[in-house]
Amino acid sequence: MNDSPVSDLIKLLARLPGIGRKSGARLAYFMVESKGSFPEDLAKTILAVRENVKPCPVCGTPSTSSPCHFCEDEDRDREVVMIVETPEDQDAVEKTGKYNGLYHVLGGTLSPLAGKGPESLRIEELKKRMEGDTIKEIIIATNPSSEGDATAAYLEEIIADREGPLSTTRLARGVPAGSDIKYADALSLELAIKERK
Amino acid sequence: MNDSPVSDLIKLLARLPGIGRKSGARLAYFMVESKGSFPEDLAKTILAVRENVKPCPVCGTPSTSSPCHFCEDEDRDREVVMIVETPEDQDAVEKTGKYNGLYHVLGGTLSPLAGKGPESLRIEELKKRMEGDTIKEIIIATNPSSEGDATAAYLEEIIADREGPLSTTRLARGVPAGSDIKYADALSLELAIKERK
Repeated sequence: MNDSPVSDLIKLLARLPGIGRKSGARLAYFMVESKGSFPEDLAKTILAVRENVKPCPVCGTPSTSSPCHFCEDEDRDREVVMIVETPEDQDAVEKTGKYNGLYHVLGGTLSPLAGKGPESLRIEELKKRMEGDTIKEIIIATNPSSEGDATAAYLEEIIADREGPLSTTRLARGVPAGSDIKYADALSLELAIKERK
Repeated sequence: MNDSPVSDLIKLLARLPGIGRKSGARLAYFMVESKGSFPEDLAKTILAVRENVKPCPVCGTPSTSSPCHFCEDEDRDREVVMIVETPEDQDAVEKTGKYNGLYHVLGGTLSPLAGKGPESLRIEELKKRMEGDTIKEIIIATNPSSEGDATAAYLEEIIADREGPLSTTRLARGVPAGSDIKYADALSLELAIKERK
């Protein structure tokens, strides 16, 4: 504890999202006690990721190539762009195997309280992508949260400002598949009724 | 996601205690998106810790010196050794500023279900320390959990095997200071009654 490298490591780990000082200490001591090369492998992989993986300049997907493999893939439908908040959301969509268009990774949501305005998201990149007439449809796939909804509303305004026809859709909302209506939260159920078809 | 360095990083992060695949993905993408040198600083600090910080060969305290600063400190009472499970527990005791003896960091508890037997703890080192006649008291400060209690019972046996007088104590248990009796768990309250003074 009095040894500065460990204190430094605890402080750095505590800056990771979702990790506080106590978890940071647990992780730091875990690394000190680790008998294999796990901590070294982790450190080297962090450096390799930082060296080789950058957000795609077009769509923001973390990638070793520029543009990324989605933007370069000629088999994907280049007329459709799905806007997601994070690469994790993108991974979840990819796992369905049911989407074959391009992506735009925003990098979060608007969050005035946290000081995140439009300039902290990939809005300029989105405007640039909409300049040509390749894109015919934009799917806004922000999360069904108040911040996701506010961001979606903001995106809809920006898309409406663009000249020329462009269809904008949002992911359907409702009762999660495989779940039970009695356990659905009120808002999801309300939306499921309102958006019934 | 298809980019192997990021997948590798997610897999490695998911091996940290308390971090699963989802948190691992969040941390990995946080590092990709990080604008400053934070991920590089973290990686370099992990390597520095691994290079410079080792468990003290005497007591197990993570330290840049060997033996550690506790074992070397002539102002500390060398007749008393407190056995703690982890360096975090040791930090907590140090923060009280009320303990001036030496430590023995076990490295966890006995946990047969998790395959942790005596050989995975610093038991041999403890036996070696008890060989001389410097130590007069051992404070067993394992956590008040079933595994901590089982480990304490095991330690008491080992200490009893030693020749010569050696006083063994355990931390007092009871109602946490500043808390409310009505919120105390049944076992703590039972112990607080049983060990009343």
